[in-house]
Amino acid sequence: MPYGYIASMKARPGHRDEVIDILTGGADGLRTAGCHLYVVAAATTDDVTIWVSEVWESKQHHDDSLKLPEARAAIAQAMPLLTGEFFTQETEVRGGLTGQP
Amino acid sequence: MPYGYIASMKARPGHRDEVIDILTGGADGLRTAGCHLYVVAAATTDDVTIWVSEVWESKQHHDDSLKLPEARAAIAQAMPLLTGEFFTQETEVRGGLTGQP
Repeated sequence: MPYGYIASMKARPGHRDEVIDILTGGADGLRTAGCHLYVVAAATTDDVTIWVSEVWESKQHHDDSLKLPEARAAIAQAMPLLTGEFFTQETEVRGGLTGQP
Repeated sequence: MPYGYIASMKARPGHRDEVIDILTGGADGLRTAGCHLYVVAAATTDDVTIWVSEVWESKQHHDDSLKLPEARAAIAQAMPLLTGEFFTQETEVRGGLTGQP
């Protein structure tokens, strides 16, 4: 069953768009790393919270992707713009509707 | 920009799979209602929590979908199997990678 990962993080005030640009910048490269879905979204209830929903072939694929040079560079670039408050949840994806027809 | 909706809920002990079956049962019909993505997942850290990540053409499409007879029936069927603890977050989807190539 596919591996799911849901995370939220808070940007320092005024930096959310910048963080979102970093997070979405390398999205195209994720497919070859075993990523099925990767959605980056801004909470509508405040100006700092970012939510990321991911679906991967397996937990191993997700873990391995974090070691790629481009992922490490993106994380290093984003970290100083974040408050350090993270929420993360690992899931087992059970079904639904994915992608356009 | 697409509308995102992230929710989590807790099933009564022993009923998570049943709720997930209800939630995923009508997924195919959502596309025509303006749903781009709908992922139903089980938390790996307990036996009761369910996470749902959705992307819709607009908030209006999402709101309207909840009024469809099949949605109302699914909600009525699932509600008694849930504890009533919900988390929901509305988002503005900013980008990422969606669907298979």
